[in-house]
Amino acid sequence: MRVAGRAMRTIWLGADRCAVEIIDQTLLPHELAIVRLTTLDMAVRAIRDMQVRGAPLIGAAAAYGIALAMMADPSARNLDEAVAALAATRPTAVNLRWALDEMHRALAILSEGERAAAAFVKAGAIADEDVAINRAIGEHGAALIAAAQRRKGAGARIDILTHCNAGWLATVDWGTALAPVYRAFDAGIPLHVWVDETRPRNQGAGLTAWELGQHGVPHTVIVDNAGGHLMQEGMVDLCITGTDRTAANGDVANKIGTYLKALAARDNNVPFYVALPSPTIDWSLDDGSAIPIETRDPREVTHIAGWSADGVRREVRLTPEDSTAANYAFDVTPARLVTGLITERGVCPASRDGLLGLFPERRRLGAA
Amino acid sequence: MRVAGRAMRTIWLGADRCAVEIIDQTLLPHELAIVRLTTLDMAVRAIRDMQVRGAPLIGAAAAYGIALAMMADPSARNLDEAVAALAATRPTAVNLRWALDEMHRALAILSEGERAAAAFVKAGAIADEDVAINRAIGEHGAALIAAAQRRKGAGARIDILTHCNAGWLATVDWGTALAPVYRAFDAGIPLHVWVDETRPRNQGAGLTAWELGQHGVPHTVIVDNAGGHLMQEGMVDLCITGTDRTAANGDVANKIGTYLKALAARDNNVPFYVALPSPTIDWSLDDGSAIPIETRDPREVTHIAGWSADGVRREVRLTPEDSTAANYAFDVTPARLVTGLITERGVCPASRDGLLGLFPERRRLGAA
Repeated sequence: MRVAGRAMRTIWLGADRCAVEIIDQTLLPHELAIVRLTTLDMAVRAIRDMQVRGAPLIGAAAAYGIALAMMADPSARNLDEAVAALAATRPTAVNLRWALDEMHRALAILSEGERAAAAFVKAGAIADEDVAINRAIGEHGAALIAAAQRRKGAGARIDILTHCNAGWLATVDWGTALAPVYRAFDAGIPLHVWVDETRPRNQGAGLTAWELGQHGVPHTVIVDNAGGHLMQEGMVDLCITGTDRTAANGDVANKIGTYLKALAARDNNVPFYVALPSPTIDWSLDDGSAIPIETRDPREVTHIAGWSADGVRREVRLTPEDSTAANYAFDVTPARLVTGLITERGVCPASRDGLLGLFPERRRLGAA
Repeated sequence: MRVAGRAMRTIWLGADRCAVEIIDQTLLPHELAIVRLTTLDMAVRAIRDMQVRGAPLIGAAAAYGIALAMMADPSARNLDEAVAALAATRPTAVNLRWALDEMHRALAILSEGERAAAAFVKAGAIADEDVAINRAIGEHGAALIAAAQRRKGAGARIDILTHCNAGWLATVDWGTALAPVYRAFDAGIPLHVWVDETRPRNQGAGLTAWELGQHGVPHTVIVDNAGGHLMQEGMVDLCITGTDRTAANGDVANKIGTYLKALAARDNNVPFYVALPSPTIDWSLDDGSAIPIETRDPREVTHIAGWSADGVRREVRLTPEDSTAANYAFDVTPARLVTGLITERGVCPASRDGLLGLFPERRRLGAA
């Protein structure tokens, strides 16, 4: 997507082809800093510390992390160790594991001399595939927005609520939940996005608001508490979120708080869609109850960083010094609350049958 | 309640009996600053800028504001103007209007020479009545906690989730939602409180956590997004919140986000109680749809204040500079989601019949 008019992705191969470059998302929305990753350790840190985040982008970053590892030491042992180190960074998103499996499968059969070059090619292919998938999600989702707009009437504005950041910053390009928004906006459909700020890390206030603003999409930042009220007041036409892992029955693990918005949507008859690339589906899980929920440093709750009037990034404490905090990063929204899943192959009900209808090859594989 | 072992209220008459003193709640949890109010304007500002907040405390502060106005000019015209100025500060809480009505009724019939002294007496009576009411709410609510503890089993800890601050800082003393917590804790019932941070003003992270900590009550701060997940995981035994205005049918307007927690409680069979002093009931409203919802400065969403490592209070910006924000301060939780209302006269269903059962005199008055 565009940043100040210039096309960017979130991750790309450096011009010298021996480093990977990323946008440091911890510094947005106030600073667009590019970080150059040259080693496996740097890739591990970038994922763990959330310089890159978002399930699809984590997958692409992990793939490039393997390539960096192979550049330093293409041994089978180092391949296994790199996979293990990257897999340990974030427990909830399944794309990470999917991308690592893809890389391992592609590289394990090669000779040591072939691995580094092949790894960069394969990582690039994973990144390109993510872009293609998300472009398709955008088309299918934009059709839903267009239909809502036709129902609402000529010239009516469609108000979309989203949680966290499932925009292009969460992927290699386009985004998942926001891909339909960009496609519909570019097609001239009048729309406006309610942006949940998404505590504790404020990926909504910091990332979603920023990327929508860069693209010129009208949006309003709200606190996570506000969405229910907006839906009660008829101010939301549909919700679209992403997901970090989707169980085979359509249960979705996504950023903490997604479940609360899905409950409010159901209580107010607002359609609640979840957009996902198929690598986000964990066919091995019958439902969402077994999805591991990452807990992160309580400091993300007790402290917050922002920019003070003098342009300096500062971290401030919000809680009493002797109060503890807990930091659950994801929750599971049961399929019964999800109106539909928007995938690269189309929109389906959030159910096993719905998913198998779009991915029939999984039925032949026994769906496990 | 106690602050560093010393008993305090949130508002009191100064030692010279011609000023009112309050805790400046915008500086908690990091600084316990006492502010001396000597004029009506100062009282108006203290309420509007939320140095004092919480429906019952707003009522008491408004009453004292009238007394300060009468000290300066006890004319009938100034009485009317002071009532109007104070009534305009916050639109949602009804205690404010109730206290102003009480003051006006008591003072309008007096001569100018009698008004100032009578106003201080009456304001003091309103404050003392609030303390007595909340003590009674605490007893009735503590019985609910004790019953939950007996059901859960000997020695089991009761986990209570609360939203915003409905503790003693929101009242003159004891609190509404937290009065039962303090009574149960003092009675030796093992309990722990999940404290919603409550964006945008973080009254949970700043005030509830602070006052629970000062009293020694175990608690954990969580982001507003987390409560649904905790309930799904069986980590919440009951929810208790306050309310800023309760309609005659039991609908409750409370801090934005309360509705989302009530939805999650219902979805997970967690009891959801709302604690309220009877002046919070607006008998003139058949349901909550007509309760005015205050909107506040978007800057409360785009910026946040906290304490940096050097002990300085700093405000930082969280959003892109060109992103707008909306700031709805309250939402309405429908009575159907409320397990029971805890009042000074006992616990009742959240319904017209339930409320009239405890306040039968309202039936005789036609309940309007």
